[in-house]
Amino acid sequence: MWPDTRVIDLFGIGIPILQSPMAGSSGHEMAAAVSEAGGLGSLPCASRSMEQIRMDIGAVRSRTSKPFNLNFFCHEFNAYDETTEQTWLDNFAPYCDELGVSPELAASGSNLAPFGEEHCQLVEKLSPAVVSFHFGLPAADLVARVKSTGCVVISTANTVEEAVWLAERGCDAIIAQGTEAGGHRGMFLSQTVTEQAGTMALVPQIVDAVQVPVIAAGGIADGRGIAAAFALGASGVQIGTAYLRTGQSLANEMYRARLAAGTDEATVLTNVFSGRAARGFATRLTQDLGPIADTPMAFPMGYGVLAPFKASAEAAGSVEFSSFLAGQAVGLGREGDAGDLTRQLADEAQVQFARLSGR
Amino acid sequence: MWPDTRVIDLFGIGIPILQSPMAGSSGHEMAAAVSEAGGLGSLPCASRSMEQIRMDIGAVRSRTSKPFNLNFFCHEFNAYDETTEQTWLDNFAPYCDELGVSPELAASGSNLAPFGEEHCQLVEKLSPAVVSFHFGLPAADLVARVKSTGCVVISTANTVEEAVWLAERGCDAIIAQGTEAGGHRGMFLSQTVTEQAGTMALVPQIVDAVQVPVIAAGGIADGRGIAAAFALGASGVQIGTAYLRTGQSLANEMYRARLAAGTDEATVLTNVFSGRAARGFATRLTQDLGPIADTPMAFPMGYGVLAPFKASAEAAGSVEFSSFLAGQAVGLGREGDAGDLTRQLADEAQVQFARLSGR
Repeated sequence: MWPDTRVIDLFGIGIPILQSPMAGSSGHEMAAAVSEAGGLGSLPCASRSMEQIRMDIGAVRSRTSKPFNLNFFCHEFNAYDETTEQTWLDNFAPYCDELGVSPELAASGSNLAPFGEEHCQLVEKLSPAVVSFHFGLPAADLVARVKSTGCVVISTANTVEEAVWLAERGCDAIIAQGTEAGGHRGMFLSQTVTEQAGTMALVPQIVDAVQVPVIAAGGIADGRGIAAAFALGASGVQIGTAYLRTGQSLANEMYRARLAAGTDEATVLTNVFSGRAARGFATRLTQDLGPIADTPMAFPMGYGVLAPFKASAEAAGSVEFSSFLAGQAVGLGREGDAGDLTRQLADEAQVQFARLSGR
Repeated sequence: MWPDTRVIDLFGIGIPILQSPMAGSSGHEMAAAVSEAGGLGSLPCASRSMEQIRMDIGAVRSRTSKPFNLNFFCHEFNAYDETTEQTWLDNFAPYCDELGVSPELAASGSNLAPFGEEHCQLVEKLSPAVVSFHFGLPAADLVARVKSTGCVVISTANTVEEAVWLAERGCDAIIAQGTEAGGHRGMFLSQTVTEQAGTMALVPQIVDAVQVPVIAAGGIADGRGIAAAFALGASGVQIGTAYLRTGQSLANEMYRARLAAGTDEATVLTNVFSGRAARGFATRLTQDLGPIADTPMAFPMGYGVLAPFKASAEAAGSVEFSSFLAGQAVGLGREGDAGDLTRQLADEAQVQFARLSGR
């Protein structure tokens, strides 16, 4: 039924579709729905406390006995310095009056925590089927402990060099994230988005460079994209944006309105939201300060600066300061149930496989 | 044998692979080899005089009776002004001493002519099977004359909006050029490359938006990419970079060395070579002045400024001022005969179609 079953076998799932962990936009309901349908649901843990993660896992397990993925960030804070912060804050000064934001409210900050000892203990205790990391990998001893728990470990590469680096450090599969992808770039060795490849070019080159199975991400939102990913040599796909309009999405109404109207030209890669490059809807803010600022706020502290402006603008009905993340295939998205969508995507892929062979 | 035969039928060819017209890097030998093998060879005419185009066509016809494509640019010069030119020339002043270039040699100029009356008369007289345009379309009366000659007319879209525009104006097929593609972006309505989509996201959205067949371009260099393009709904592919290392390529040894060493991260979209955005190998020049300069030289006059620096640097063994164009799948290229490569690519695609269906 699937031309390559390496990801299906590795994760113990029926449909080789991973739901992207989307911090703030997806939670336990989406993860449970996708996993129960046969895909691999994901719980984004970077913005959640230990207690919240435990509750999320419990909620998923109450709805399905099937495998799911816990996603963690492994960023570092080493790029932070006061001069950069002040320069960045100054950029927002002109908006204070307009949006009624007190300057003292615009302050760096974030609730995004990197994977550490506490997370590792939680993983050891609750042993999810899969643990995915973003922005590289945590320290080698932490990776070893996660793997010895029996978890499958995966991470994201934006370049062939990153894929080889991850495979050498024990990743059981590699997510090859093309530039089409919504959300944060996983980049950790590559320095600039301008040199990173689209999915069509990236996937086969990573497939050729590593022995582990490759999961294609970026620009995939229907059965055509899934079939294309398998044609390129991928053993599975990761899909995010296409799930953002489902009933299980946490996207608010303003976000959903942008998704529903999204075109191929609607998004940009920008670092003005968080401090790191992410693909999201172009706004007045990405236009004014970016889309790629030369001296952005250190990730993830940019979110703290943005928060009061986003809140004030959205309260006034404007999305021009909203960090609504989405990929370039947003125009192919649809409403419905996340579990139904997972099954539909699988069925559509089968139709394409049959069509390509002339059956 | 092919899951979609619309491009095969439209062009009257056996293999739905269009060889990209690569001005300066491909000529009549490559066009003849690809057409004779069953694909659609292309003659880049923008940099050729009327007499040269006539000779090229004669040379192709002496080697094959099969269809081929004449490619023309339809750029305008309206962005040119003296202040922009002087600002651009000033950027190169620091390199004059280093490279031994007299400042007066650095002057705007180009031999790239847009499609006009003389070209149209030549097309009417010699009636090639296919005429492709880049940067939109020429004036409506010229398009009508080309079509009434019996030529199939195609052009390149970088966005869904551009594809719809081209289809409404009579294009018989649309080349959907993802950001992975080497060479100049066809963009003519879209203003910035940062909002343009990769092949994986672009092709299905254009397929959904137009009735005419779609030819996928960008990141396609082997049978996997071809099969992926058909999965996305394309009826054919356009391939350029993969032909640059063949025996029929006009690329010089320094260019070929960069191609042979090319990785997924080797290229950037830059406007510092010609004045318009094109994908090519990153160099000291793209780093210093770009890759996307805010106020580039007006296209195509940037080539004239660059020429003496490129010549001087290459004579000294450096490629840091060379405008070597290539796409993000350069790492998948190979040496050999252009006709053999065309047949190999077709065979590889068939292997993928069979693999995807589980045969």
